[in-house]
Amino acid sequence: MLTGDSKRTDRSDGVKRAPAGAAVLRDDVTEAIRTAVFEELAASGYGRLSIEAVARRAGVGKTAVYRRWRSKLPMVIEVVSEVAALGLILPDTGSLRNDLRMFVHVLARVLRHPLAAQIVPDLLAEAARNPEIAETLAAALDAAQRQSSAALVRKAVARGELPADTDPDLALDLIAGPLYWRLAVVRTPISGDYLDRLAESIATALGAGA
Amino acid sequence: MLTGDSKRTDRSDGVKRAPAGAAVLRDDVTEAIRTAVFEELAASGYGRLSIEAVARRAGVGKTAVYRRWRSKLPMVIEVVSEVAALGLILPDTGSLRNDLRMFVHVLARVLRHPLAAQIVPDLLAEAARNPEIAETLAAALDAAQRQSSAALVRKAVARGELPADTDPDLALDLIAGPLYWRLAVVRTPISGDYLDRLAESIATALGAGA
Repeated sequence: MLTGDSKRTDRSDGVKRAPAGAAVLRDDVTEAIRTAVFEELAASGYGRLSIEAVARRAGVGKTAVYRRWRSKLPMVIEVVSEVAALGLILPDTGSLRNDLRMFVHVLARVLRHPLAAQIVPDLLAEAARNPEIAETLAAALDAAQRQSSAALVRKAVARGELPADTDPDLALDLIAGPLYWRLAVVRTPISGDYLDRLAESIATALGAGA
Repeated sequence: MLTGDSKRTDRSDGVKRAPAGAAVLRDDVTEAIRTAVFEELAASGYGRLSIEAVARRAGVGKTAVYRRWRSKLPMVIEVVSEVAALGLILPDTGSLRNDLRMFVHVLARVLRHPLAAQIVPDLLAEAARNPEIAETLAAALDAAQRQSSAALVRKAVARGELPADTDPDLALDLIAGPLYWRLAVVRTPISGDYLDRLAESIATALGAGA
């Protein structure tokens, strides 16, 4: 049941480049824990999630979890943020309109993912009662997408497609807001055609010429 | 403790225009229950809310609650939807840009309300696990604002400010999405100036001339 990783009790841990004899955090164990965190979040929600249940589901000891995260909150935040950032490393398509189209399609796919659709609302509900969760989660969600939108605006300005004073934060709100509203709040289905029209509207809103 | 409304046991109820001798639902009791629902939602969340606790907080008997709603779900949905619709009856300011400015300012105020900020995320988390809640809540949230945005687009088309084929649903997504994203998801403060710029961007996105 316990992996080698979780059996070591006499060694320091958390060292990336291990000196001779020191333990390292095994990647496969980390991966199993990550998956378990997601599955537990989806099944039980943040409030009822326990480190014990995560460890059990991952088939590791509790210490294997505690070596990686000091408590439930940083564990959940890290796992969720990494997934939020995933898939948002967007290629440069060479034009603002295509960059935007790519962005909204990818973000819609992320938001439609069953795990995201279930876990993010749950964490937001916790966030409404717990300022620490609110702050950390918001920072994670925002940072993940803010980088993508800042890059998108920067490239469009460099190409001469957008005015130099375009506000990348407003751009992000116009991209993420409608998608989040539709997919996570009112939950009405959206089509690929809708996504294309949304991308076009955002380009126009930001001041791109026809 | 019990009000007159909840003491009647030998009479039918639920009659708006009471025939001689029949009981009516007292408005002050309904109001006390509504307030109690909000306070209980904020304090305990949907999952832990009980009809009993609502009745206790309102100072009425449980039957006074059951006379009005057959169970917890329709009670919460009705109370929340009425508030969601409140304040969204927007005056005609005579121009699309001013109508939009009014809309985003009013909606931002609604979303910033501590009760909305706490209760809506909580219900959305329940909705992620319960399709009945999801459907009813989405319909309530959406309908309340869809009417306002449809009226706004219709008037702007009539004034010649927007193309006849403007999609009112896209308009709503562009209005409600960014505000919801900023105020309920990433929860970063927004200024009056931001709201004005957002309104202007939406006007441009929808195809309004300068």
